Amino acid sequence: MKTPIHVAVLVGSLRKEAYSLKTAKALIAAAPKEYTFDIVPIGQLPLYNEDLDTAEPPATWAEFRKRIGKADALLFVTPEYNRSLPAALKNALDVGSRPYGQNMFSGKPGAVVSISIGAIGGFGANHHLRQSLVFLNVPLMQQPEVYIGEIQNRFTPEGQPQEAFSQYLGTVMQACVQWVGTILKK
Amino acid sequence: MKTPIHVAVLVGSLRKEAYSLKTAKALIAAAPKEYTFDIVPIGQLPLYNEDLDTAEPPATWAEFRKRIGKADALLFVTPEYNRSLPAALKNALDVGSRPYGQNMFSGKPGAVVSISIGAIGGFGANHHLRQSLVFLNVPLMQQPEVYIGEIQNRFTPEGQPQEAFSQYLGTVMQACVQWVGTILKK
Amino acid sequence: MKTPIHVAVLVGSLRKEAYSLKTAKALIAAAPKEYTFDIVPIGQLPLYNEDLDTAEPPATWAEFRKRIGKADALLFVTPEYNRSLPAALKNALDVGSRPYGQNMFSGKPGAVVSISIGAIGGFGANHHLRQSLVFLNVPLMQQPEVYIGEIQNRFTPEGQPQEAFSQYLGTVMQACVQWVGTILKK
Amino acid sequence: MKTPIHVAVLVGSLRKEAYSLKTAKALIAAAPKEYTFDIVPIGQLPLYNEDLDTAEPPATWAEFRKRIGKADALLFVTPEYNRSLPAALKNALDVGSRPYGQNMFSGKPGAVVSISIGAIGGFGANHHLRQSLVFLNVPLMQQPEVYIGEIQNRFTPEGQPQEAFSQYLGTVMQACVQWVGTILKK
Repeated sequence: MKTPIHVAVLVGSLRKEAYSLKTAKALIAAAPKEYTFDIVPIGQLPLYNEDLDTAEPPATWAEFRKRIGKADALLFVTPEYNRSLPAALKNALDVGSRPYGQNMFSGKPGAVVSISIGAIGGFGANHHLRQSLVFLNVPLMQQPEVYIGEIQNRFTPEGQPQEAFSQYLGTVMQACVQWVGTILKK
Repeated sequence: MKTPIHVAVLVGSLRKEAYSLKTAKALIAAAPKEYTFDIVPIGQLPLYNEDLDTAEPPATWAEFRKRIGKADALLFVTPEYNRSLPAALKNALDVGSRPYGQNMFSGKPGAVVSISIGAIGGFGANHHLRQSLVFLNVPLMQQPEVYIGEIQNRFTPEGQPQEAFSQYLGTVMQACVQWVGTILKK
Repeated sequence: MKTPIHVAVLVGSLRKEAYSLKTAKALIAAAPKEYTFDIVPIGQLPLYNEDLDTAEPPATWAEFRKRIGKADALLFVTPEYNRSLPAALKNALDVGSRPYGQNMFSGKPGAVVSISIGAIGGFGANHHLRQSLVFLNVPLMQQPEVYIGEIQNRFTPEGQPQEAFSQYLGTVMQACVQWVGTILKK
Repeated sequence: MKTPIHVAVLVGSLRKEAYSLKTAKALIAAAPKEYTFDIVPIGQLPLYNEDLDTAEPPATWAEFRKRIGKADALLFVTPEYNRSLPAALKNALDVGSRPYGQNMFSGKPGAVVSISIGAIGGFGANHHLRQSLVFLNVPLMQQPEVYIGEIQNRFTPEGQPQEAFSQYLGTVMQACVQWVGTILKK
C-alpha cells in the first residue's frame, strides 16, 4: 500500500464555527502519521446544472473534481438539515460525480460521521448519504456507525474536543484506518 | 374553502430543457380552473449557510420564502441525482424552512412526482424528499405514488406530452386536487 | 364524523413486557372518550407466503384482516430492530395488505411512534414504516414526529409512565386526534 | 484466501416458484468452482421474540444461526413487499443477529439483488436491506447495484434464465467474487 494515504474530507455545514468542521479537525488530529488530509471546500460550488457542465465547466467545479480525484479515501462529516443532507454536501456529490463516466469518488473507501445538536445524531443525513454513496461506488465502513448527538457539549469553551470525545474519535479513526487498509491493499 | 387555491411548484432540475419542468407544466395544464400555479425558481438561491441567515439574509432567499409563504399547497417535480434529491431542490427546502420557527412549507398539503431517464422513476429521490417533508410538516398525498420512468419518451418531438402521458397526468392531478381538498377544508 | 372513532393499534415488539406495548397503553389512556382502541395481536400470524393466500388463507390472517378492516384509524408503536421494523410488524403490514386489491389499511389516517433504549428513538424504524405506509395509502401525521429514546427511563418501577412522559404522550395524542379529524371529516 | 469460499444465500420470497429463488439459483450457476453455496431456508423461523431467546431458543433459530455462522460471505436475493423487505427476510436478519453480541452476519462481505414484477426492480427493498446491513456490519458491494425489473420476463417457459439474463447475472457474479476477494484477503 502506497504512503502517505491521502484523504479528502467533506464537511456538511458552511458555518465558520461549524461543529462538523471542528469534529473533522479532531478526527484528523487522531489519525496516524502516514495519512494526509485535505478539507475540500464546498460552499463556493455553484448548484449543479447540467447546462453548465460543458467542455468548460465553472472553474470551481473543475478544481473541486481535481482535488477529489487526488484522494485515496473519503471522510464525510455532516450535520442533518431537514432529516437529510445539507444541500451544500449534496451539491458536492453531484458536482464531483459528473459528467457521467467521470465520477471522482468511485472506488475510494469512505466513512460517514453525522452529528446533531439534539439526541438523534444525524441518523437521517447519515443514511441518505450512504444511499448516494452506493451509486457513487464508495465502499463504506459499516461499523462503528457514527451518530454523534448533543455535539455542542463535546467541546471545551475554547473549541477543543473534550477528552472523552477525543478518545471516542480516536477509536473511530482507528476503525477508519483499518477499513481503508482493507479496501486499498487489494 | 377559499378560491383560487394557489400552488407553489418546485422543479428539481435547473436545465433549461428539463423534463421535470415540462412535466410540471403538463401537470399544471391538467388542473381545474380554480387552481393557480407559481413555478418558483430555485437555481439562483445561494447554498444555505446559517451565517448568512441574519436579519438581512440574501435577497433571493427572502423573495423565495415570500413566494412559498403565499402558497396554499405544494407540488414537487424532480429527477433523481445520485439516488437522492438534486442539490438545488434540497437547497430550496433548506432555505424555505429557516430560520428555525419560520418554516414556510408548514401545514401545506403536498404531492411528489419523480422522474428518470431509466426505468426506476426516481424512487430514491421521491422517498428522500418525503422524509424531509415529514420534518417540514407537509401532509403528503400517498396514493397514487408517481414514479415516471423513461421520461424522454413521454413527449412529442415538439416537447408536448404524448397523449397517453397527458391522460395519466390528468389522473394524477385529480388525485392531487382531492388531497388538497381533504387537507384545506378542515 | 361518526363516533366512536375506532383505532387499530399495532405494537412492534412481541415481548410480554414490551416498552412499546406500555407506551401504546399510555397513549390510549390519554385519548378522548369518543375514541375506542383495539391492540391487534400480530405475533401469531404466520410469515406471509403468497402460496398460502388462497381462498382459504390461515385463520389468523383472516381474523387479523377483519380487525384491521373495522378500524377508522391506525396507530403504530414500535421499537427498532437492526435499523428497521421488527419482522413481526412488517409481517402484519404484509398480511393486512394482501391479496392485491384488498389492502385493509387503505385510506385510514395513521400515526407512527418509535422508541428505543438508546438515544436515537427508533428513527430508522419510524421512516422505514413511513415508506411502506405510502404504498399502503395511509395518510400520515407528519408533526410532531415521535422518536422516544431511553424508553426504559420513562416508566415507574410499577410500569406506569412517569408524569412528564405521560404529559408528553398527551400532547402526542392531541395531535393524532386533530389529524384523524382532518382526514375523516372529508 | 482459503477455498472453497462458502456463501449463505437468503431468498426473500417463500413462494415455491419464487422468482427470487430462481434468480438465486441462476446466480449460483454462474459462480466460479471455488465457491460453494447454501440457500438457507427462512420460512420456518418463528417471528423474533426476545422472550423466546433464552438459553434454549427455538431449534430452528439455533440451526439457522449455525448455518449463517459457517458462511464466509452473504448473498441476498429478494422481491419488495410494500416498498420494503418481505417480513420473512427481515425476520431472518433479526433471528441471525441476536442475542446481542452474537450477530452471525458480522464482517462477512455481502451483495444485494432485488427484483420486481414491475419496472422499479425492488429499489425500496434493496435500500432498506442495505440500511439494516450497516448495523449488522456486512461490508456491501456498492456497484453494480442490482435492481431487476420485469423479472417474470427473464425466464423461459421451462423456468430457465433467458440467455441475455444469464449473461447479465454472470457479470453480477463476477463483481461479487471480486468484492468478496477484496474483503476476505485482508
